[in-house]
Amino acid sequence: MSRIYDRVALIGLGLIASSMFWAIKRAGLAGEVTGYARSEATRETARRIGLCDRVCDSAREAVEGADLVVLCVPVGAMGAVAEEIAPVLKPGATVTDVGSVKRDVIQSVHPHIPPGVHFVPAHPLAGTEHSGPESGFAELFDNRWCLLVPVEGTDPDAVARLRALWEGMGSNVDEMEADHHDLVLAVTSHTPHLIAYTMVGVADDLRRVTDSEVIKYSAAGFRDFTRIAASDPTMWRDVFLTNKDATLEILGRFTEELFALQRAIRTGNGELLHDYFTRTRAIRRGIIDAGQDTDAPDFGRAKAKS
Amino acid sequence: MSRIYDRVALIGLGLIASSMFWAIKRAGLAGEVTGYARSEATRETARRIGLCDRVCDSAREAVEGADLVVLCVPVGAMGAVAEEIAPVLKPGATVTDVGSVKRDVIQSVHPHIPPGVHFVPAHPLAGTEHSGPESGFAELFDNRWCLLVPVEGTDPDAVARLRALWEGMGSNVDEMEADHHDLVLAVTSHTPHLIAYTMVGVADDLRRVTDSEVIKYSAAGFRDFTRIAASDPTMWRDVFLTNKDATLEILGRFTEELFALQRAIRTGNGELLHDYFTRTRAIRRGIIDAGQDTDAPDFGRAKAKS
Repeated sequence: MSRIYDRVALIGLGLIASSMFWAIKRAGLAGEVTGYARSEATRETARRIGLCDRVCDSAREAVEGADLVVLCVPVGAMGAVAEEIAPVLKPGATVTDVGSVKRDVIQSVHPHIPPGVHFVPAHPLAGTEHSGPESGFAELFDNRWCLLVPVEGTDPDAVARLRALWEGMGSNVDEMEADHHDLVLAVTSHTPHLIAYTMVGVADDLRRVTDSEVIKYSAAGFRDFTRIAASDPTMWRDVFLTNKDATLEILGRFTEELFALQRAIRTGNGELLHDYFTRTRAIRRGIIDAGQDTDAPDFGRAKAKS
Repeated sequence: MSRIYDRVALIGLGLIASSMFWAIKRAGLAGEVTGYARSEATRETARRIGLCDRVCDSAREAVEGADLVVLCVPVGAMGAVAEEIAPVLKPGATVTDVGSVKRDVIQSVHPHIPPGVHFVPAHPLAGTEHSGPESGFAELFDNRWCLLVPVEGTDPDAVARLRALWEGMGSNVDEMEADHHDLVLAVTSHTPHLIAYTMVGVADDLRRVTDSEVIKYSAAGFRDFTRIAASDPTMWRDVFLTNKDATLEILGRFTEELFALQRAIRTGNGELLHDYFTRTRAIRRGIIDAGQDTDAPDFGRAKAKS
């Protein structure tokens, strides 16, 4: 794989940024990768484990001379970081991000991008329950989608180059409009996360009553929920605050459907339940057929990891 | 491992029964294992893959002479099967089951158990998204809990013997009272499944609008939900119809909490969201500490499977 950018700057060194670093190195996609994290402890960890070719003590220092700047901070912090680095952005450079919400990031970052610098928002659909600089691994993006959400009038070459980077890191890449992205993610990711958080919270209530039995006998459904609900609290707070409209719309549909099933249970309508469960099973098959998951007991993750 | 029963009969040949057969064989826990399934196609598959030492064409034939009879049919079918096999149960034999609900199974099965036959309800907390005779594997129960729910006055020797079988199949075994079991499972398993079914149903609605994008871009949260929602429709219909009270109670708590979070999103209360998400993350740690899951990217399943 040939080099795509001479210098890449990663701002924020959590799961996504650290995985990007290892994926970039795996394929030789950049000459030098600089990194910056707000927390000194994170920067020290990064230096200790060899994360980034050079860890800098300020965002500006990391960004200077970079051809690509990747904002890997929580969505709510994107605007302030963009404002801070704007004066040192190299002419012709591209700024991108990895935030889970796109309309809000565009609104808060775009005004700070100087003329002559490209802005190409992006969102890799990949993650684990872990966070921080030590959680990354080169295979995180393999065969996962990365959605590019270019704003109107963006230089097609800048978009093509960023696409090549993501493909080099193992991703499949598509382009999507910002509002549509936020709606699709509200249903596939944001609302499911909120629901998982809620269910785990309810169990915690019950746990007080039953002496940790809920944890001890945690069965399949609940274990999956706790894994989802273990994701980074700051990141998810920002997702819900910035993708408010789409999340609330999908939540409205969700409670409507839930009440229908609840009523079927109360009235003993087994036919409705059976039909509903049969339909959702078919959807699962569609996801496996679309290659976004496997039906292996380990969900294909052992292979992706090692 | 020494033989615990001379003859075991498995009635119903789905995921749990087929896994029991392979686990029993792995440890040499029984002399002969007979099997019966209502569907001829299932019986033929069982014969073809060597599932059970002898596949019988009636439940009675499978049960005759058995020291242990395991009812592995959906909860709603337990009573009818018990009634059918009652006349041929061997004196001194034990009848058990693997249903996800215990109060209802006890009410529907116990009246059919003749004097001199022991009845020890059980529930292994293990499963995958797959069902049917070909879905079983010997390691399914390894290091998972099996809950025994003996009815009052049960012979302690019969309970101890069944416990030894489950331990021989790799499980940890605990005893629990029926109503308490049903409440704990409502929160750890039954309600999470209903929620996952609902969310997947909502996504299906949206999918019609967005040309299968929801499936294509299915992100982490949603993928886990679809896996849960792919479980056997008949089994889950019966679970909700027979554990109605506990499920509706937990659903009530769930919607209460969900509305509080929804309100926090609407009003922009980031502190409440962050606190809530931090608390649920701690619960996840508790589950890992309790050994009911691992934090490996494949959740320890590759090891369990192969």
